Amino acid sequence: MAEAYEPTERSKVNRYKTRANYDYDTIHGIIDTCPVLHVSFNPSSMDDDPFPTILPMIGCTGSYTPPNAAETSAVCVYLHGHSSSRFMKLPAVQSESDDPVYSSLPGTPACIAATHMDGVVLALTPFNHSCNYRSAVIHGYANIVTDSAEKMYALQLITDSLIPSRWDHSRVPPTPSEMNSTSVLRVDIVSASAKIRAGPPGNDRADLDDVGMRQRVWTGVLPAWGVWGPPVAAPENLVPDVPGYISDFVKEQNDKGERYATEIAGKALTSKKQA
Amino acid sequence: MAEAYEPTERSKVNRYKTRANYDYDTIHGIIDTCPVLHVSFNPSSMDDDPFPTILPMIGCTGSYTPPNAAETSAVCVYLHGHSSSRFMKLPAVQSESDDPVYSSLPGTPACIAATHMDGVVLALTPFNHSCNYRSAVIHGYANIVTDSAEKMYALQLITDSLIPSRWDHSRVPPTPSEMNSTSVLRVDIVSASAKIRAGPPGNDRADLDDVGMRQRVWTGVLPAWGVWGPPVAAPENLVPDVPGYISDFVKEQNDKGERYATEIAGKALTSKKQA
Repeated sequence: MAEAYEPTERSKVNRYKTRANYDYDTIHGIIDTCPVLHVSFNPSSMDDDPFPTILPMIGCTGSYTPPNAAETSAVCVYLHGHSSSRFMKLPAVQSESDDPVYSSLPGTPACIAATHMDGVVLALTPFNHSCNYRSAVIHGYANIVTDSAEKMYALQLITDSLIPSRWDHSRVPPTPSEMNSTSVLRVDIVSASAKIRAGPPGNDRADLDDVGMRQRVWTGVLPAWGVWGPPVAAPENLVPDVPGYISDFVKEQNDKGERYATEIAGKALTSKKQA
Repeated sequence: MAEAYEPTERSKVNRYKTRANYDYDTIHGIIDTCPVLHVSFNPSSMDDDPFPTILPMIGCTGSYTPPNAAETSAVCVYLHGHSSSRFMKLPAVQSESDDPVYSSLPGTPACIAATHMDGVVLALTPFNHSCNYRSAVIHGYANIVTDSAEKMYALQLITDSLIPSRWDHSRVPPTPSEMNSTSVLRVDIVSASAKIRAGPPGNDRADLDDVGMRQRVWTGVLPAWGVWGPPVAAPENLVPDVPGYISDFVKEQNDKGERYATEIAGKALTSKKQA
């Protein structure tokens, strides 16, 4: 099995090629550690409204293999939302479109972006300012998951992607009405790429030679990461202490975020290590 | 002058309407405090490639009024990038398109999303899980800024939106070659909306009545915010201490992020206060 996506015209990184990465592990890892995904689609055909739109959504990668399937399914992205939301209705609208090109597509064309901002990089001149980041962009066809076993698999996966093992620690299984009012979109990946910038600022020779300026302009990195604060219990909560699977997760994530952002602020990592 | 965007078919929030907000201050505030914006556009017409794409970009709102203009310009979003990047070339491609509908548009249709994830909301059942967030979505027409005074204004604005007053504390003005290799896109806003969720979990009556379950399932909020770590000086830095404008910014942002995410975890704020 291939371990990387094939760069295509659509996904190929053209600038700063050394920052590009097409590995499955890197791309899926960025998606799965990003607490919110940005999903873009075209709500209508070009003539009606020329604007693509973006929704912030919760989701993660997964690979559901039906019980009697001959081989493992390819990794896709699952997104969840309310059944009545605009995006959830789009695959049906698209398949019934008057536009033959659009209606013959195997799903609604979508783009998913996940970005971690790892720091602000301050160089001598604003032109050389940058950010440390890990960014993944996926293009794929979105369809509603209709198989109930796959839908249940995806809902558990998405819940556990927020807090590991939360599904089993909450009131499950969902009631039939809960299942009906939640929809899951599966985005089958057609192309994907990641771009990673890590390390201290880059400066031009002419600026570096100006020692007076270097004594005036502070250069370096402000490391940045997402932090989880102490859990705040709901008024109706009756569990006396914060459970270990939550407090461990909070501590682990905070340590990991701090370690990565601080480490790369001081030294550039090689492409393999940046994952 | 109006102080809110008109809800349109495109921007109207249809679900959880109480979370919707169209105020200038709220929308611009979310954009300007978000360290990375997600920008979506259609790289080519539907026939060639049906996928919209998303780029993570740096930018902020602004309002450049030319020296002799009769009135203040409307607020727009400025985005910066390398002149040779795909998106920067798109307004020219679009105006020369064979498609008369597309080529007559007043710029490249774009969507800009800014999202702050303020916490994970854990209810009794996965179905009622949610996130606290502040999200803004803007639709508008993107064009390259050609006026050199406006471009300089926008570059300073974008630099200072990362770290206030950084422009004046770095090596400026940019050289002519730096100005040439950087492009600025101005996105003129045609519609915009924000959506905000704040507060503890919501649970169904039937779940709340099950006291045994409430003693088993922890409910509450994990507050989340972006944190800046201690600045890491570059190897070539010759400024002995981290300047006050940087250390003050780091402290202020960290305090503000923690305060908001923690405060709303315990109690829902009214729509006005959530801004």
